[in-house]
Amino acid sequence: MKSVKVFAPATVANLGCGFDVMGLAIDVPGDELMLSFNKDKKLIIKKITGDGGKLSYNAKKNTVTVAIQSMLDEMKMSQGFDVVLKKKMPLGSGLGSSAASSVAGVFAANVLLGKPFSKKELVPFAMAGEKVASGSAHADNVAPCLLGGIILIRSYEPLDIIQLPVPAKLYLVVVHPHVEVLTKDARAVLKKNIPLNTAVRQWGNTAAFTAGLFSNDMDLIGRSVEDHVAEPARAALIPHFHEVKNAALESGAIACSISGSGPSIFALCNGKNASGNISKAMKKVFTKNGIQSEVYISSVNKNGVRII
Amino acid sequence: MKSVKVFAPATVANLGCGFDVMGLAIDVPGDELMLSFNKDKKLIIKKITGDGGKLSYNAKKNTVTVAIQSMLDEMKMSQGFDVVLKKKMPLGSGLGSSAASSVAGVFAANVLLGKPFSKKELVPFAMAGEKVASGSAHADNVAPCLLGGIILIRSYEPLDIIQLPVPAKLYLVVVHPHVEVLTKDARAVLKKNIPLNTAVRQWGNTAAFTAGLFSNDMDLIGRSVEDHVAEPARAALIPHFHEVKNAALESGAIACSISGSGPSIFALCNGKNASGNISKAMKKVFTKNGIQSEVYISSVNKNGVRII
Repeated sequence: MKSVKVFAPATVANLGCGFDVMGLAIDVPGDELMLSFNKDKKLIIKKITGDGGKLSYNAKKNTVTVAIQSMLDEMKMSQGFDVVLKKKMPLGSGLGSSAASSVAGVFAANVLLGKPFSKKELVPFAMAGEKVASGSAHADNVAPCLLGGIILIRSYEPLDIIQLPVPAKLYLVVVHPHVEVLTKDARAVLKKNIPLNTAVRQWGNTAAFTAGLFSNDMDLIGRSVEDHVAEPARAALIPHFHEVKNAALESGAIACSISGSGPSIFALCNGKNASGNISKAMKKVFTKNGIQSEVYISSVNKNGVRII
Repeated sequence: MKSVKVFAPATVANLGCGFDVMGLAIDVPGDELMLSFNKDKKLIIKKITGDGGKLSYNAKKNTVTVAIQSMLDEMKMSQGFDVVLKKKMPLGSGLGSSAASSVAGVFAANVLLGKPFSKKELVPFAMAGEKVASGSAHADNVAPCLLGGIILIRSYEPLDIIQLPVPAKLYLVVVHPHVEVLTKDARAVLKKNIPLNTAVRQWGNTAAFTAGLFSNDMDLIGRSVEDHVAEPARAALIPHFHEVKNAALESGAIACSISGSGPSIFALCNGKNASGNISKAMKKVFTKNGIQSEVYISSVNKNGVRII
């Protein structure tokens, strides 16, 4: 195999109660990446489309090539690849755009090199790539993007990644409003210290959300998606957030919160049938306030990144 | 039925990672309580044994009668009971002694009154009783004492109690050293604010511990019992804590931490066979340092309080 084409899906991190420890993959949108061997032993970005010219062609600054390089370093290998990246998802949307590119890169390189690593083993390399874009190495986007499903990161040192069960009826509506929230601003509004009482409420919910997934209890899942930490601070960065959330809940969503660091907002739905009305109600709030938005309706993507 | 005799078991709250939201019941020790109707419409404490004279005979100050009164208030009922309480467990041990007495009281009264309430509905009354003893109303001892098993309290307002699965191989060793740790001191050493990073690690573990219980993964359960909040602060209140913990882990315990607010220390064991060596190793540390201790070996008590 001289080249491979892969699709890496968008991801919803935090999931309301699981700040920095939980994330899931959705079916659409995502990144398409074509990777081919080259003879120059160099990592070369041939072409990027769909990014509005925002991403770097410098292999030392682009998430794709940084991630691949970190994998090659681990293998003590010198190898050249040509990269063609089609961003088919919005940048800076809170949907794990840079994670998807990182994952696409390491997954494709791993395939071309004969799969020296398992998907789980690729997580640290993808984290290294994402770090270039976001400034810090997180796994709550890259792990679900690689592995699919709903992921819990118990610990970073050592990295301990746990796959949680996916209830068959769980559907997501994700709305991406065309407003800019910089990840560094979204981080900056968070307090470095939180009241112990608040933390206790949060870990009551992370445990209960986990129990809800295992026991297929949609009601418990819904009432556990309660964020006392990030959402109260970040809601102010997203115009009309509370109105959108109310619209989702009043239309039957079992839960609604911010995807990653925003501005995208996700709603959890009990079955696909419920998602239509919920998505319309959420989008309507942005539209009537003169804000454009895209809407994605998706089940949980159980497979993660794949060859296409 | 004119009288009833009940047994309310000791409980291990917090379980390392689940500060203020998790607890489980064990088989021994516990409280025995005999409750009988009286004609004077008064709550009267006839006799208390095993408390070293520490507990109040004043019905407005004793956890048993305060709990029963709170239940009678809810029913808008005037009813007299005579109480005979045998404390068969240590007070101030971190094993939920006051919770056991509260629970015994409301459970026995509920039986004599023809069971107007479910066990779950008794939780708030038992909490009211425990509040007299501990100063604050918690459910992480009273809920497992009433319901049995491993309990998660997702939220207090509204009260949301979730029963978690009990792995068949899970055994506990609980060691109660004869040192005094006042609950108010154990509370006072905790910081009112904690770093967000620390909180994130804690809720990664509460979620992972829950996943471990559901997936019967003893290794995951073991590595999730990691307390970054209470144990680091409270360990200093328990002489030789770290030495005891190391002894437990070196003898095969999958986890070890402080029971409730201490001074009791619990270890989780993978099967009953493992518990013998673990309990000996833990006790030995106290003995060689001139501290007396009791050791309890128990499975998780799945039934909670019961008629005897």
